[in-house]
Amino acid sequence: QSLKIGLIPADGIGKEVIPAAKKVLEAIGSDIPKPEFVPLLAGWEVFMHSGTALPEETVQALKECDGALFGAVSSPSRRVTGYSSPIVALRKELDLYANVRPVVSVAANPGDKPDVDLVVVRENTECLYVKQEQMITTDNGREARATRLITERASRRIGKMAFEIALGRPRKQVTIIHKSNVLSVTDGLFRETIRAIPNLPEVNGRYDSVKIEEQIVDSAVYRLFREPQIYDVMVAPNLYGDILSDAAAALVGSLGLVPSVNAGDKFVMGEPVHGSAPDIEGKGIANPLAAIRSSALMLRFLGYPAGADRIDLAVDQVIREGEVLTPDLGGKSSTQDVLDAVLKKL
Amino acid sequence: QSLKIGLIPADGIGKEVIPAAKKVLEAIGSDIPKPEFVPLLAGWEVFMHSGTALPEETVQALKECDGALFGAVSSPSRRVTGYSSPIVALRKELDLYANVRPVVSVAANPGDKPDVDLVVVRENTECLYVKQEQMITTDNGREARATRLITERASRRIGKMAFEIALGRPRKQVTIIHKSNVLSVTDGLFRETIRAIPNLPEVNGRYDSVKIEEQIVDSAVYRLFREPQIYDVMVAPNLYGDILSDAAAALVGSLGLVPSVNAGDKFVMGEPVHGSAPDIEGKGIANPLAAIRSSALMLRFLGYPAGADRIDLAVDQVIREGEVLTPDLGGKSSTQDVLDAVLKKL
Ligand SMILES: CC(C)[C@H](C(=O)O)[C@@H](O)C(=O)O
Ligand SMILES: CC(C)[C@H](C(=O)O)[C@@H](O)C(=O)O
Repeated sequence: QSLKIGLIPADGIGKEVIPAAKKVLEAIGSDIPKPEFVPLLAGWEVFMHSGTALPEETVQALKECDGALFGAVSSPSRRVTGYSSPIVALRKELDLYANVRPVVSVAANPGDKPDVDLVVVRENTECLYVKQEQMITTDNGREARATRLITERASRRIGKMAFEIALGRPRKQVTIIHKSNVLSVTDGLFRETIRAIPNLPEVNGRYDSVKIEEQIVDSAVYRLFREPQIYDVMVAPNLYGDILSDAAAALVGSLGLVPSVNAGDKFVMGEPVHGSAPDIEGKGIANPLAAIRSSALMLRFLGYPAGADRIDLAVDQVIREGEVLTPDLGGKSSTQDVLDAVLKKL
Repeated sequence: QSLKIGLIPADGIGKEVIPAAKKVLEAIGSDIPKPEFVPLLAGWEVFMHSGTALPEETVQALKECDGALFGAVSSPSRRVTGYSSPIVALRKELDLYANVRPVVSVAANPGDKPDVDLVVVRENTECLYVKQEQMITTDNGREARATRLITERASRRIGKMAFEIALGRPRKQVTIIHKSNVLSVTDGLFRETIRAIPNLPEVNGRYDSVKIEEQIVDSAVYRLFREPQIYDVMVAPNLYGDILSDAAAALVGSLGLVPSVNAGDKFVMGEPVHGSAPDIEGKGIANPLAAIRSSALMLRFLGYPAGADRIDLAVDQVIREGEVLTPDLGGKSSTQDVLDAVLKKL
């Protein structure tokens, strides 16, 4: 038995942190089947060479893999004909409908909030990310329209994912994030569909212990900052989830710490929440911990909790000791130093 | 000469803070023409009595006023046929295209960020707030769609407002907030239109001293939490502006401090950024400072800077002394106590 993992470093510091995560997966040994890695291309760089940001070979190869790790993509600074984000396309092509982003305090920085322990469960395939946009020209100038799609089917499956995750946590609380005071039809559907899940016949009482809360997105962000401890699992449509997970990351020291997976029913792709960080690209100081944690989260979704726990423990120890940290956490160490420190703790 | 001001307390604590703001306007005396107040209805309560959340008389009466103050609206906890937010409707009916929200550190709470001094300039008439939503039923369940509208015309006028506001500030910096890496057409139009403003012939070099920056909305929220001092004027489409201004409010102690105006070319309506706060309604402990500051901001837009300055100075003194504060700021005082303290400083 082997574990076939696609590796898509993509752009910028993606090419620095994904190799680090690979080294960690190679090092954990018997807790997982021997990993086999498949290097794959996507992103702005391959677009500039080949005219496509997501080569068809990458998509096909991923379909043969058990899981994958994705780095980060650079966006062109102005609109470029034919370019569109490969991560958004991958999520859709592989039907990775859930973007799961756990955010936990580590108290690495003095200014950090001490009591954050939440998971953002972000719908990953629809909302404004369907990218249906049109431009028309009128006597008054140009007008652009985009479609925001919310379906019952996608809301139900992301809701179920949120309930499942809540079941495995001590507080068992799901907060539905929406803006149904303005978007009564689309966000109304999202919220009603999720509220109705516990009563579905097939659910059969499974979620009876889960407490359901809800928050309007603007006040959710306000309260996230002022009283983050009120949140356990937050479930949100795509764009709100995008914003909320960055907001939550700001509470715990650095985007360089926050992992995610893009999960479907048959495939899971780990992805650090941070971007390609052109400002520090090539300097060897990118924080590899978000990518390493993303590989652990991927293992968890693939059914290897022991391997995942070993990685997470090692990462937590390195952060807590606070001696080997990259500059985003106030340290002076390099990507390689942090990787070595994690490998030593494994 | 008199100053005719519509007063729309609407729901919840709106009915406690708008009367406080009225008292302050009555007290400032010769810096403004004698104010004449027109009490008007809107919101959830009047909807329950009359079936409309925004009576036509309110709209007509406002058209005879110089300005207005709006409190806050309660939203029903589930979708109610025929109900829709009167504040969203008012912004559109009176073409109040700019929502201007200054957020400034006052260091009222120990956990507050010390160096926030920014203005969110939010487009106020389009984006997902056009409320064009449809629901269809398919074999796979219900599907809801909403339209997000971004026009060149609205982007240009909100951009000009942002540049004008920046011109009056020491740093003269405008940061355009968008998500054009996903919404290349709609947010692409927003961003390009604003970037092009300084080169318009009619602008005639007026904005040459303004520095233009830009940020993707998710990372803008992240950086707003971690390094708020990088922002001066932020200009954003409607929904991002809604979220950003709540996020910024979280940095400075309380939503109960943050004022706004909804401004058009011919009319301006002050509105505290906070909501109707059903949890503290009727307890007499709502913070009136956001409403009072909103009345000052309204006066500024109406061309009475001296009156506005007097109010702002009085409010700043009360906050800085820290002796008469409502519970949201860690104090024990009532709405009336805080109002009295402000009146004494005027
Ligand atoms: C790069 C961008 C398209 C992406 C998104 O908006 O989903 C990113 O912000 C993320 O959160 O993964
Ligand atoms: C009450 C609601 C419709 C409103 C909005 O979304 O604009 C509020 O959040 C605001 O910011 O004024």
